[in-house]
Amino acid sequence: MCGIVGMVGNGPVNQEIYDALLLLQHRGQDSTGIATAEPNGVFHLNKQRGQVREAFRTRDMRGLLGNIGLGHVRYATKGTASSEEEAQPFYVNAPYGIVLVHNGNLTNTRELTDELFHKDRRHLNTSSDTELLVNVLANELQGSISGLQLDPEQIFTAVSRVHERVEGSYATIALVAGYGLLAFRDPFGIRPLILGTRPALDGEGYEWIVASESLVLENAGFEIVRDVEPGEAVFISIDGKLHTKQCAKDAKLMPCSFEYVYLARPDSEMNGISVYEARLRMGERLADTIAKYTPAGAIDVVMPIPDSSRPAAMQVARKLGIEYREGFYKNRYVGRTFIMPGQAVRKKSVRQKLNAMSSEFKGKNVLLIDDSIVRGTTSKEIIQMARDAGAKTVTFASAAPPVRYPHVYGINMPSRHELVAHGRTIPEIAQELGADYMVYQEIDDLKAAILEGSPDVEDLDMSCFDGRYVTGTVSEEYLAWVEGTQES
Amino acid sequence: MCGIVGMVGNGPVNQEIYDALLLLQHRGQDSTGIATAEPNGVFHLNKQRGQVREAFRTRDMRGLLGNIGLGHVRYATKGTASSEEEAQPFYVNAPYGIVLVHNGNLTNTRELTDELFHKDRRHLNTSSDTELLVNVLANELQGSISGLQLDPEQIFTAVSRVHERVEGSYATIALVAGYGLLAFRDPFGIRPLILGTRPALDGEGYEWIVASESLVLENAGFEIVRDVEPGEAVFISIDGKLHTKQCAKDAKLMPCSFEYVYLARPDSEMNGISVYEARLRMGERLADTIAKYTPAGAIDVVMPIPDSSRPAAMQVARKLGIEYREGFYKNRYVGRTFIMPGQAVRKKSVRQKLNAMSSEFKGKNVLLIDDSIVRGTTSKEIIQMARDAGAKTVTFASAAPPVRYPHVYGINMPSRHELVAHGRTIPEIAQELGADYMVYQEIDDLKAAILEGSPDVEDLDMSCFDGRYVTGTVSEEYLAWVEGTQES
Amino acid sequence: MCGIVGMVGNGPVNQEIYDALLLLQHRGQDSTGIATAEPNGVFHLNKQRGQVREAFRTRDMRGLLGNIGLGHVRYATKGTASSEEEAQPFYVNAPYGIVLVHNGNLTNTRELTDELFHKDRRHLNTSSDTELLVNVLANELQGSISGLQLDPEQIFTAVSRVHERVEGSYATIALVAGYGLLAFRDPFGIRPLILGTRPALDGEGYEWIVASESLVLENAGFEIVRDVEPGEAVFISIDGKLHTKQCAKDAKLMPCSFEYVYLARPDSEMNGISVYEARLRMGERLADTIAKYTPAGAIDVVMPIPDSSRPAAMQVARKLGIEYREGFYKNRYVGRTFIMPGQAVRKKSVRQKLNAMSSEFKGKNVLLIDDSIVRGTTSKEIIQMARDAGAKTVTFASAAPPVRYPHVYGINMPSRHELVAHGRTIPEIAQELGADYMVYQEIDDLKAAILEGSPDVEDLDMSCFDGRYVTGTVSEEYLAWVEGTQES
Amino acid sequence: MCGIVGMVGNGPVNQEIYDALLLLQHRGQDSTGIATAEPNGVFHLNKQRGQVREAFRTRDMRGLLGNIGLGHVRYATKGTASSEEEAQPFYVNAPYGIVLVHNGNLTNTRELTDELFHKDRRHLNTSSDTELLVNVLANELQGSISGLQLDPEQIFTAVSRVHERVEGSYATIALVAGYGLLAFRDPFGIRPLILGTRPALDGEGYEWIVASESLVLENAGFEIVRDVEPGEAVFISIDGKLHTKQCAKDAKLMPCSFEYVYLARPDSEMNGISVYEARLRMGERLADTIAKYTPAGAIDVVMPIPDSSRPAAMQVARKLGIEYREGFYKNRYVGRTFIMPGQAVRKKSVRQKLNAMSSEFKGKNVLLIDDSIVRGTTSKEIIQMARDAGAKTVTFASAAPPVRYPHVYGINMPSRHELVAHGRTIPEIAQELGADYMVYQEIDDLKAAILEGSPDVEDLDMSCFDGRYVTGTVSEEYLAWVEGTQES
Repeated sequence: MCGIVGMVGNGPVNQEIYDALLLLQHRGQDSTGIATAEPNGVFHLNKQRGQVREAFRTRDMRGLLGNIGLGHVRYATKGTASSEEEAQPFYVNAPYGIVLVHNGNLTNTRELTDELFHKDRRHLNTSSDTELLVNVLANELQGSISGLQLDPEQIFTAVSRVHERVEGSYATIALVAGYGLLAFRDPFGIRPLILGTRPALDGEGYEWIVASESLVLENAGFEIVRDVEPGEAVFISIDGKLHTKQCAKDAKLMPCSFEYVYLARPDSEMNGISVYEARLRMGERLADTIAKYTPAGAIDVVMPIPDSSRPAAMQVARKLGIEYREGFYKNRYVGRTFIMPGQAVRKKSVRQKLNAMSSEFKGKNVLLIDDSIVRGTTSKEIIQMARDAGAKTVTFASAAPPVRYPHVYGINMPSRHELVAHGRTIPEIAQELGADYMVYQEIDDLKAAILEGSPDVEDLDMSCFDGRYVTGTVSEEYLAWVEGTQES
Repeated sequence: MCGIVGMVGNGPVNQEIYDALLLLQHRGQDSTGIATAEPNGVFHLNKQRGQVREAFRTRDMRGLLGNIGLGHVRYATKGTASSEEEAQPFYVNAPYGIVLVHNGNLTNTRELTDELFHKDRRHLNTSSDTELLVNVLANELQGSISGLQLDPEQIFTAVSRVHERVEGSYATIALVAGYGLLAFRDPFGIRPLILGTRPALDGEGYEWIVASESLVLENAGFEIVRDVEPGEAVFISIDGKLHTKQCAKDAKLMPCSFEYVYLARPDSEMNGISVYEARLRMGERLADTIAKYTPAGAIDVVMPIPDSSRPAAMQVARKLGIEYREGFYKNRYVGRTFIMPGQAVRKKSVRQKLNAMSSEFKGKNVLLIDDSIVRGTTSKEIIQMARDAGAKTVTFASAAPPVRYPHVYGINMPSRHELVAHGRTIPEIAQELGADYMVYQEIDDLKAAILEGSPDVEDLDMSCFDGRYVTGTVSEEYLAWVEGTQES
Repeated sequence: MCGIVGMVGNGPVNQEIYDALLLLQHRGQDSTGIATAEPNGVFHLNKQRGQVREAFRTRDMRGLLGNIGLGHVRYATKGTASSEEEAQPFYVNAPYGIVLVHNGNLTNTRELTDELFHKDRRHLNTSSDTELLVNVLANELQGSISGLQLDPEQIFTAVSRVHERVEGSYATIALVAGYGLLAFRDPFGIRPLILGTRPALDGEGYEWIVASESLVLENAGFEIVRDVEPGEAVFISIDGKLHTKQCAKDAKLMPCSFEYVYLARPDSEMNGISVYEARLRMGERLADTIAKYTPAGAIDVVMPIPDSSRPAAMQVARKLGIEYREGFYKNRYVGRTFIMPGQAVRKKSVRQKLNAMSSEFKGKNVLLIDDSIVRGTTSKEIIQMARDAGAKTVTFASAAPPVRYPHVYGINMPSRHELVAHGRTIPEIAQELGADYMVYQEIDDLKAAILEGSPDVEDLDMSCFDGRYVTGTVSEEYLAWVEGTQES
Repeated sequence: MCGIVGMVGNGPVNQEIYDALLLLQHRGQDSTGIATAEPNGVFHLNKQRGQVREAFRTRDMRGLLGNIGLGHVRYATKGTASSEEEAQPFYVNAPYGIVLVHNGNLTNTRELTDELFHKDRRHLNTSSDTELLVNVLANELQGSISGLQLDPEQIFTAVSRVHERVEGSYATIALVAGYGLLAFRDPFGIRPLILGTRPALDGEGYEWIVASESLVLENAGFEIVRDVEPGEAVFISIDGKLHTKQCAKDAKLMPCSFEYVYLARPDSEMNGISVYEARLRMGERLADTIAKYTPAGAIDVVMPIPDSSRPAAMQVARKLGIEYREGFYKNRYVGRTFIMPGQAVRKKSVRQKLNAMSSEFKGKNVLLIDDSIVRGTTSKEIIQMARDAGAKTVTFASAAPPVRYPHVYGINMPSRHELVAHGRTIPEIAQELGADYMVYQEIDDLKAAILEGSPDVEDLDMSCFDGRYVTGTVSEEYLAWVEGTQES
């Protein structure tokens, strides 16, 4: 998962892209990058490791000249965390000069790599699928050029061809030197992308923004125009003219359900659905399931695992009429911290981030609510912490259903055998995690809790829960290949 | 306000002091420092600007050899933030070699500076009161020496003389080269300090810790022995022997009430009182006051200003029977961020950290709960955000009484005229902040809410609320001098 | 002026390229870069500001994997010093992936920029002529491809087309991903490039090197094969096979005379001519000219301006039978040093680097020898230093003729009016610089002193002395444009 | 060996101390430090690893406020190179506050360490003898205080006591907070120290400087007052008044002969003797010795090992009437360079710094002149390089006599068995180094060559040549202890 933003302004955009990335920081903390373009087509590009506020110095920012630009925060997927070379944006210098950022994950990378090398004679310097994407786009743009000037139709033709060649999830923003900003979303709209506008400060025309989440627009004073549609391309010329076109043949909105469960900020609205309210509804439905499986009076107190499960937990407590307490304190200042090599490593990862307040646990039957459970290692430690703090019994509930399949569309993808729910029944999971009782949201309840938020969304990507992948290439063979690659 | 920790171990302490500082990071993010001592008396000292996890590199940590050490995180008080030279610990090389860290604020600095220079011929290189403190200690230790070996009694004599010369708040930890670790607390115990122990890993004797907050002990597997008493000195020799003595004549525990209101982590217990539970009790008492001044039905929803007011807000909601919702989202990733010089600065400080979710505010009468209000600038912006998000009316309640006097014992001390409550009635404050209604905790209620937590604490320092300063030197002339200094 | 090196080895080349760059450091200290290629075609690229030994850290070097690579040290020409973005090597990703370094200066940059943008639709992100060169090469290589595999003939065809499109001086080394190392020299061989080989350490075949100067080969244990011929291209495949071809129509060797005067290291041999011996011959011929214009007995002592004029000065002293002394001491440790902003700047640039030993000057008639005089500002200060140190009279002699025209082929190019000799007679120069007498080498003597070193070199580029530019494009209009650009 | 400088000015001294350190850089490149004092006694101190121009950033320099200051460049002696903590200046905070820099080496460190710890109860945090020195000075100053104000006589009394307690070489500069700058030299004046003055820029009184070498004074526009005398102390109050006093009982000037041989810059004058002229005289006397042992016609060419042997070599060539050539080229840009871990290390240390020009060696009988030979490892490689370059025979001559004893007064001190001349006759040395013939300067000739420069100097420290140590403590037991320490 990553966060992306692009802007076409009437003045310098560096500061606003920086501010936007700060607001998207929850979507990735491994690396970050900003590119801007001057009217004469000169790009300025700066990529750094780490979080936004540590990454850019004043002199870096001063160099990012231009009224059009884009930015990226990156969540490194497994096996690639160390590679500084995979930080985005990516740049190719022909045709025109293109810089591109991308949130998502391509699933036919093997075929694309082969084609680009042998057919298109393009050099790939990393194993990043973003480098693949910018090269496919460059190649198709090269092919669609006719005449001296590039017009929006030619660009849209190129995007159509990209949709034909590429499979997977991809919310994308690119700058084409001397022309403008291009944004497009894969034909299923798996990853989010939203468009906004505001009158220019100087009163001349409009400024535009595209970003992963709506709170960026809100914060910077942009009006939401609408979500970019699945398969749609948006092109904003350097003089601020908007052009849009549906470029995919069979586009159908199936947004990633995990955005609502965990990834997005609660104060964002995605595809017309408020994330916060979706989480409240998840809590309400989860309460019903808990009630179904848990004897009345068996629970003394409901507690969230901070921070993202708080809305769901509050609704559970309310609907069940049980007291809500915050038994865990989360340390805001822990990140990737120093560990002295060669000294005995005491177990500390989770315990440095979370602390259980004994007074809240002593002698109580506690119900812990988390948004979801993936590998289960954190949940296991948390349950143990609750017991160490004196809990009589621990019931653990997840606002999402069991994660039984890899998430191939852009989240860190553990192999199936790393998923605690893979191949286990719920009682077996309870045993594995050390809980007295486990309750999971039902798949249909999660779906309903999200879809109720908007009449315009009819279906969701729920693949990590139900194993049904919307893009055809994700086969058993593919999953085995991915897992093999990551383990080497 | 600062955080301090000291350890006497059977193995290297660098990693554990680092971990402890991470847990105390909420007490100060401006600079940090660690000092360790080898058995031969060689000190290793490393001070850096910024937060712990950014400050120390592996090679810094490798250099911090020794089984005894201490650490500090610093919250720079006004006017000194820029001065790297005031980072702690401080070192003097005679007698013996002493390094020292300090949480608190001395109030007779003018007299001490004069005495040290003229009588004791000691050089002060900064305006830090910690440098004063280490020099007074060194001077008194020099004076109390007799014979070849330093014994605990001589050290305690020196601490007694420090108590006589120094006024203000000071929770202090020091290393004496070749001898051991010394900790002491001012005669009113204004700032916190707690002592813990655990059996050494190798089974030989005990390891010791002193720290600002109990959660550090808990996290590292130490048993709480007890809070260091007001005026008491604790000396642990390098071979792990504990010596303690009451060194003040008229010690009387009057801990700082602001620790319970805001400063401490909720999962800490201070002077036997759970911070979290004190905050819950503040909420309950605040609810009564709200009920007294607010017509029934006038409020639709209760919301905390995250994070520290959450316990109080939940209790308010519960006791008033009004719905509790989290209408504000707090961005975890914003710190001191880059601002492009020379571009129009849009107002953003608070809005980058907090975002109001419109759906929660639209058309509602909201009750916002904060832990306290100091200058009022943030509160004012938050109230405006609530209105912008569509709130019908905004009632603002503070879990602490009006802050009408400077806090001279270790917190950032704004001048009186900067305090929004200074010289204003509550309706005037409401007008100034733009709230429809304001409710403040009563002074007696705050006191009771805290003191109920333990029968052993009889009184509190409440000076910023009631203007009564426990140390004699804090006069009108002193306050005027402090305010004058800071404004120059 | 810059220094370049490329290697095809049987093992990692990063360390050897680093070592070679250290030996070429005199050719440029502003920035440096290394690129290597792995057998699978992955490039690793690292560019930094400053000198080699400050620029690369161990972890940078570890990342430079591969048995084939190239490196660059850069002397920033006027107006570009600040631009980090112009550091070499440059990379383009299609066709195949090419990284390229270049020593020299293109003179038809305006035409090329225009063509590349409009005809070739290639994006130029800097004003560097190296970026132009790599794009022209990429474009011509794209055009010359037929079939699936790239063969040496196709590469040589591309180089031929480069020679047709590009004008100026260019000694060039490039890596083509997956194929090998390409090196070529402009049709006049203005800038140097030499080829060497050695048996591989593992006994399997040969390793190859191309570099700006022969001492790099000698130092690393390579045998000199020969200078790359003007217009010739050399291609070494990744498996170590050498292919060469003359790719220019009317190649004619006219190497830059300034390499022998000042630029090259004395221990290098260029185009078969020892630089050191050429400098000795310059001294001998200069002695004759001095004798012609200077009355016998008018000079007491001959002194070099260290370091590069030492060989010439020694020969002057010897031939004139006058005592040789080193009256100036050169500080090795001065570089770009700190100057405190806002304090009175005392004149110090030259005086920090050079110090005159009074005892050597007092009461003497001194003859100072420098290799050449460009702007004259340093010479003026040196003459004043000699006078301050007590010299009775100062005669200043230059081993090169008056520099009256810009050097457009790769050296820092001052505008004509900045050249002290531009538009001045020799007596006028003497007056301007404050010398009692001035003597310059005759143009024919310089030419003869260099050409005597090898029967195979028939002509030289002497354009900065005689104003005759070997490439047609250098017109009065061009020079005016260059000067205009630099002053803006 | 180190370089030191101190200044009392009428304006900020940071820039001038920085400039002075650049000029003293040849005396040490391992670390550097500057301390300044403001009129109110506040010190500013900055110590860094590496060379001056890499060490201090603009913001470091801005912090060095004050009109009085001192600086240091450090040559790390064996076994201590890695310890950043031993960088100078050193600071103690009582009495008054003292910062101190020191060039030299104390020889009774074991006794002093013991006394300071047990008697004076002072903490030593490093094994640096400079920390010892500042503590002895502080202790004696504490003891000599009477009355409220410190006067120069009290300071001189303290220096007298330092001379009594301390043995070895020590040219020292210190700042006493609130009072002024103190400089003193050991009773034999082993290490250099010179005093200068100039009228203040604002016309009010005088500014003062003390430094290791005279060229610093000359460069900054100071008049030389005189060398500080052996045993003398110089105190300059912050208002610019000079006080001096002989503080040693039996002071006798015996300056280090190695300064003239190698350490000092040739453009300095030390104890009234020009270093450059002393080196010329060494060459003249060496020529006689060479003539005595070498058959006429046996040598074709004389060559220096650059840079410091150049004056001697020129005189040898001239007096013997043999041609002088520079056959070696020295690379200015090589420092501590990167070596890729784990790859085969090709021999390169010397060959990267020096290159032999084959044309100068081929078929010739060469006489190589170096200033001195210590371990012999470099000489051995150089002789081999000359042979590889084609020399017929190699005669190697040293302008200094055989180094047969450790230099305990401040130069890197190899153990005796590491010295190539220790326990070897000259023919045995020739064999060890691979030379055809060896010639060494006679001890009496070296002494005469130096002493001829001034009638005021009667004797020299020649201990590394003749084994006679001027300070009593240097016994066989001491040397064995030093050697033992270094090898552990």
